[in-house]
Amino acid sequence: MNILITSGGTSEKIDQVRSITNHSTGQLGKMITEHCLAEGSSVTLLTTAKAVKPDPHQNLTIKIIEDTEQLLTAMEGLVPAHDVLIHSMAVSDYKPVYMVGFEEVLASSDLAEFLGKSNAESKISSADDYQVLFLKKNPKIISKVKEWNPNIRLIGFKLLVGVSKEELLATARASLEKNQAELIVANDLTEISNGQHHAYLLGADTVTEAFSKEEIAEQMLSHIQKGDSS
Amino acid sequence: MNILITSGGTSEKIDQVRSITNHSTGQLGKMITEHCLAEGSSVTLLTTAKAVKPDPHQNLTIKIIEDTEQLLTAMEGLVPAHDVLIHSMAVSDYKPVYMVGFEEVLASSDLAEFLGKSNAESKISSADDYQVLFLKKNPKIISKVKEWNPNIRLIGFKLLVGVSKEELLATARASLEKNQAELIVANDLTEISNGQHHAYLLGADTVTEAFSKEEIAEQMLSHIQKGDSS
Repeated sequence: MNILITSGGTSEKIDQVRSITNHSTGQLGKMITEHCLAEGSSVTLLTTAKAVKPDPHQNLTIKIIEDTEQLLTAMEGLVPAHDVLIHSMAVSDYKPVYMVGFEEVLASSDLAEFLGKSNAESKISSADDYQVLFLKKNPKIISKVKEWNPNIRLIGFKLLVGVSKEELLATARASLEKNQAELIVANDLTEISNGQHHAYLLGADTVTEAFSKEEIAEQMLSHIQKGDSS
Repeated sequence: MNILITSGGTSEKIDQVRSITNHSTGQLGKMITEHCLAEGSSVTLLTTAKAVKPDPHQNLTIKIIEDTEQLLTAMEGLVPAHDVLIHSMAVSDYKPVYMVGFEEVLASSDLAEFLGKSNAESKISSADDYQVLFLKKNPKIISKVKEWNPNIRLIGFKLLVGVSKEELLATARASLEKNQAELIVANDLTEISNGQHHAYLLGADTVTEAFSKEEIAEQMLSHIQKGDSS
């Protein structure tokens, strides 16, 4: 099988020295990659410069991206050539549009003007006591995957923070249906720490529970192989 | 000599999964630390989890911080116990106060209300097409150093992007005088790349020029030793 894995967290530049970064070490994506390689699959890993990476392997290709736009372009090219997509990357929901001093925002008669501006300077001034950053929603990449390749088997992730099991599973099920995924790994940041990683792997008719990154990778591979032999 | 070195870049949390990060690998701080240790000094290195770090050494203590507030608290405690401060960390100018949908900002009759709010949710909603992030200026730590220890020898850094040599040196001189530093390392991001790092080391009566991180570290140590023997 040809498996495409995304891993790490995207960053969106505010200027040349500052970015908004989504936290993700890439540890889980690394472990899933290693499991897939051990099972004999070929893996393309789309990740970031800062994420941890697997050791080199003859069946592993690593491509580095930084922001959501680069990720979208890379995935549009790669998704059609793969059988399975494991989309574990933490993708930035918003990207910076314009940063400006609060006084200038106060003085504006039409705040929408700022949504059409962009900063010309390479390093935004730090003179103002308060600043205002306008951000625009990024495209939801996961919702485009089936347009690019209707046959790809999609495994998505849903990370929430401090919610109930019911809310977590309901949000995961909504994502499963909306994105035509066959599995969503649902986890809560408050249940992830060194060595521990609690997650539910939610399929159309199944829910399994994992308590470590190792278990998540094992259950996911088991799921993929079942689907492959059927 | 007891030398305090700051290195890497601070991050300021927007919520539990997103931060604004100042880019800095920590490579230069690592090299300066190694040079100081080789000369027989004791070093306290204040840095971040993501920055590259020197190998363990009996005269090296490493302390990890994440944001500007933690850096300030750590430095207030450490500055009085050191002879020299080499402040190479990229410190966040602003910290997030409140993030809200653009429509809610449009509907507000008093934008100042948002400066007093804070997000209760752990992961801010991504429903709005546009969002607005209000940020507050952080205290300028370098300006407090001499209050904490009037006798400490202060070496600061000034990073600009795409400016002339004249503007770079003038900005560095202003920082030298304002912060009572004895040396400012002035550099331009457009002149820093793999293996190359152009910088001016500006003192009260001297300017030397370096073309690599190695040369910056050597010239800085040479400067510190001259001052120490006089």
